[in-house]
Amino acid sequence: MVQRMTTKRVLMGPGPSDVPTEVLAALSRPTIGHLDPVFLRELDETQEMLRQLFGTRNTLTLPISATGSAGMEACFVNLLEPGDHALICRNGVFGGRMAEVARRCGAEVTLVEAPWGQAIDPDEVAEAAKSRSFKVLALVHAETSTGVLQDLAPFRGIADSCGALLIVDAVTSLGGVPVEVDRMGIDAVYSGTQKCLSCPPGLSPVSFSERARELVAKRKTPVQSWYLDLSLLGKYFGGDRVYHHTAPVNMIFALHAALRLALDEGLERRYARHREQAQALYGGLQQLGLDLPVEASVRLPPLTLVRIPEGVDDAAVRAKLLRDYNLEIGGGLGDFKGKAWRIGLMGASATPRHVSLCLEALGHSLES
Amino acid sequence: MVQRMTTKRVLMGPGPSDVPTEVLAALSRPTIGHLDPVFLRELDETQEMLRQLFGTRNTLTLPISATGSAGMEACFVNLLEPGDHALICRNGVFGGRMAEVARRCGAEVTLVEAPWGQAIDPDEVAEAAKSRSFKVLALVHAETSTGVLQDLAPFRGIADSCGALLIVDAVTSLGGVPVEVDRMGIDAVYSGTQKCLSCPPGLSPVSFSERARELVAKRKTPVQSWYLDLSLLGKYFGGDRVYHHTAPVNMIFALHAALRLALDEGLERRYARHREQAQALYGGLQQLGLDLPVEASVRLPPLTLVRIPEGVDDAAVRAKLLRDYNLEIGGGLGDFKGKAWRIGLMGASATPRHVSLCLEALGHSLES
Repeated sequence: MVQRMTTKRVLMGPGPSDVPTEVLAALSRPTIGHLDPVFLRELDETQEMLRQLFGTRNTLTLPISATGSAGMEACFVNLLEPGDHALICRNGVFGGRMAEVARRCGAEVTLVEAPWGQAIDPDEVAEAAKSRSFKVLALVHAETSTGVLQDLAPFRGIADSCGALLIVDAVTSLGGVPVEVDRMGIDAVYSGTQKCLSCPPGLSPVSFSERARELVAKRKTPVQSWYLDLSLLGKYFGGDRVYHHTAPVNMIFALHAALRLALDEGLERRYARHREQAQALYGGLQQLGLDLPVEASVRLPPLTLVRIPEGVDDAAVRAKLLRDYNLEIGGGLGDFKGKAWRIGLMGASATPRHVSLCLEALGHSLES
Repeated sequence: MVQRMTTKRVLMGPGPSDVPTEVLAALSRPTIGHLDPVFLRELDETQEMLRQLFGTRNTLTLPISATGSAGMEACFVNLLEPGDHALICRNGVFGGRMAEVARRCGAEVTLVEAPWGQAIDPDEVAEAAKSRSFKVLALVHAETSTGVLQDLAPFRGIADSCGALLIVDAVTSLGGVPVEVDRMGIDAVYSGTQKCLSCPPGLSPVSFSERARELVAKRKTPVQSWYLDLSLLGKYFGGDRVYHHTAPVNMIFALHAALRLALDEGLERRYARHREQAQALYGGLQQLGLDLPVEASVRLPPLTLVRIPEGVDDAAVRAKLLRDYNLEIGGGLGDFKGKAWRIGLMGASATPRHVSLCLEALGHSLES
């Protein structure tokens, strides 16, 4: 029998993360029109703050009115046309999803793979990039299914070597790990609000380089999604405010507040907090005798993969954590389904209190 | 210089409409996980309440995690394959958008048109349906750009005559005017939350018939949008709760509350309220000497088109209403851009207080 929740959940899964009361308060401000000057000013500010988080000066930086997976789709449907070739790196669910989305755009996909829980080897990508020219090279910065952080530094050069635009999934890195869109030469990037930004799910921040924008303008075929067509979105989000669809006003209020909190904290300090709490969690988990399948050098601070010990009932432990501690952690996906947990330390959930609670609750649950 | 809003706006444009405090309170409940049993129970209830609003028993009734235009796209990308023929009725912006979306699915579009501000003539559609077989017949129930309400009764028969599935835009009718999906034999229908449901913008309720679902299962080509693929969405929203994307938890809390309010009021009573307030508005506008371009028999109660008198400055009047009365009404679109206003009486905005305020404010603004 499901009970109505009486106390607040503690969210330490793969997202959503805990949402600060300031963000919830902004979310519930009285709704106003999507063309109201008061709203448009906040939208401007939201876009400007997103540029700071993404580390970019890209004009076309905006929140897509849907969740992170729609942000992914926005990147591919705008940059690919039928018959184009895409070079895609896969080491978890989200690289696989990229390939699936690219194929639905009519693209030919070449995959470079690494085992789940490991990073992609840039040398293998560089080798594959020699085989032909590609329209896009795509990879995941922070693989939410495994907790692997990919060093992006080598990939601009590799993309250039095969004439490709560079697409990056930053769903679980934005706000928790530096993304550095301009410095890394990323052409298209997408994220979600419910991870390290600690805003409820529902929007997907994206950013497109000038080069990406020009490529969209020169397409031979229309973008297959009207809703995600950048040339139409750009007319609303790019300054003229031409009606395209009704912007999700309250969600943008919330994102505005979440970005404000991130910038007030200071981005460097925020990234350090994520690293420090992750270190504390790693230590505590190892003290409990638990194994972390991802090698230390490529661990993603906001999300930790933990192997479920032999003989332990995955679902029973997670149900107990939820019931006894109001604590949510995530199950495994794909290759790690039933074999690992995913513990999130994202945004407002990356605090010493969260680390302690999780270690204590997990310790008790594994004993019993 | 734009001022921060200090008092609450009164929303009488084409949406968003005023959002009740109960709905805003639900929106700002602490975020919980999208696979949390507490959330899944509310999602079940939300889907069941949506069935009541839509007048359907369709299993596949759910809120798409994006705004109304994405709901439109969901209907077309799932039911159309390249080379299919679509018969589409256009008498305003949204019929035109349907045609655009259908073409982006690779479909051949046959248009039946009526002048903006008039209803579609079913006889003309029946005539066009004789020319060949069609995969879908699509039309708008409530044209948000003109305030025309289309009688849907003749269209199931016409769709059958050409072998088509029937797609209906109910963005500005759901919750304000009876939609009756099952009785009208509609196969795919989409709406928005920010109109007569008086919930913030961000979700698109949709419903698909068993026949539509079977057609999607038998497709030869994959649905071009991964995000909107009904066969994938059905695995999360259809009972198994297989992860597809992170559901926008807080927006669904808000929709749940908005649907609860609608059902508590009673649907018949709610529809009557919309009709009665619209009648009061028509009378008052005519007393002000204003012309309503849409013929009385096809007027859409939730949205009224008002011709801007000769010599009156559209933008100046709307700016004055916003500044002096905190009142938002809508500008014209397409054929009516700069020539008409759109006054919404949707959901919580369909009250005698709203009608009086609007008439008084408009009267004063036109005098000065």
